[in-house]
Amino acid sequence: MEIRLEGKMIIEIEGVDGVGKTTQCELLKEYLQQQGKDVIVVKDLGSTELGRGIRKVLTSGESRPPEVELFSFLACKAQLFSQVIVPFISSNGIVICDRGVGSFVSYFESLGFSRSFLLNAITLAINGLRPKLTLLLDVDIEEAAHRKDKKLEQSKFDLMSNEFFRKQREVFLDLSKEASWVVVDGSLSVEGISALISHHVESVLS
Amino acid sequence: MEIRLEGKMIIEIEGVDGVGKTTQCELLKEYLQQQGKDVIVVKDLGSTELGRGIRKVLTSGESRPPEVELFSFLACKAQLFSQVIVPFISSNGIVICDRGVGSFVSYFESLGFSRSFLLNAITLAINGLRPKLTLLLDVDIEEAAHRKDKKLEQSKFDLMSNEFFRKQREVFLDLSKEASWVVVDGSLSVEGISALISHHVESVLS
Repeated sequence: MEIRLEGKMIIEIEGVDGVGKTTQCELLKEYLQQQGKDVIVVKDLGSTELGRGIRKVLTSGESRPPEVELFSFLACKAQLFSQVIVPFISSNGIVICDRGVGSFVSYFESLGFSRSFLLNAITLAINGLRPKLTLLLDVDIEEAAHRKDKKLEQSKFDLMSNEFFRKQREVFLDLSKEASWVVVDGSLSVEGISALISHHVESVLS
Repeated sequence: MEIRLEGKMIIEIEGVDGVGKTTQCELLKEYLQQQGKDVIVVKDLGSTELGRGIRKVLTSGESRPPEVELFSFLACKAQLFSQVIVPFISSNGIVICDRGVGSFVSYFESLGFSRSFLLNAITLAINGLRPKLTLLLDVDIEEAAHRKDKKLEQSKFDLMSNEFFRKQREVFLDLSKEASWVVVDGSLSVEGISALISHHVESVLS
């Protein structure tokens, strides 16, 4: 499966909560659709029935051991890949992932799991399929916290501390070096970020 | 958590489908209850709400990638441990597990996962908590197949081939050496097996 799908188009947009990933995913989708491309945006817990069920459980406030969270999330990721992403890229569509491996690793590392186990597990869940391009929207934590406050949505994830975001950013920057992600300055204007993203996507498309 | 629960009583009964695990779990439970002990029998997919939900999905016949099965099962195992097993042994109860690590490893190895990954993952799911005693009911495959045919239940697992059972038995015998399981001759009479099991359980109880 890995070989057959080599070169197929998965683009991941990463960054801490509040940095503007969802907006940028939608802008990129519109940009690519205007070129006549077939595009979808997927979210780990929002794009399959299993994922939505698990999201409901994980954000319900009921306490569960972190291992249940971890393995439920991985089941969901595997389902997203096999049910949605693989069929879509197999017919030459472009998949934009709102969050990716970095969010997964940083969240579960903060719950005490080792990075090597997490990377092995996620690689299994996604059948070793790597994105063609990962874009990290990097921003100073205080800036991200300020933007987050303006949002109305109050999920479990939104209520986490700045300390969590600081660690998450460190993990992102770590991984961005290891896996050659493109780091985009998330403090630029929405239009500025969007222009940079389109530029980087163009360079892998051609 | 590992240290605090050291010495607490988890007993696993392992063996291929049809060998009589469920019967022996019930007989052992009765035996221990007659001594005034607090005992429960648990099944991976039968003893929590999450587990029953997942069992329904996994036996529905709908095709899912093996990774979804694997991670769903692990979520379920983690839930069983934290919700049922740990509270019960913490108040000095005895937990009898109908199937254990061996069934997990042999099933998912047959789907292509590596043993080292499976052992790491299951250790995480159960917080490193090992059974005090694992009893393997070992039997010749043809004998097991013959007994299985007599049962009315036709689950997905019952429909697997003798080849699967042969491999499963190999994994059980492998693991029994590595982890010092007690191997009981599963071709003996129900009463004979039960007497042997009681004997081995007595020796770890005292």
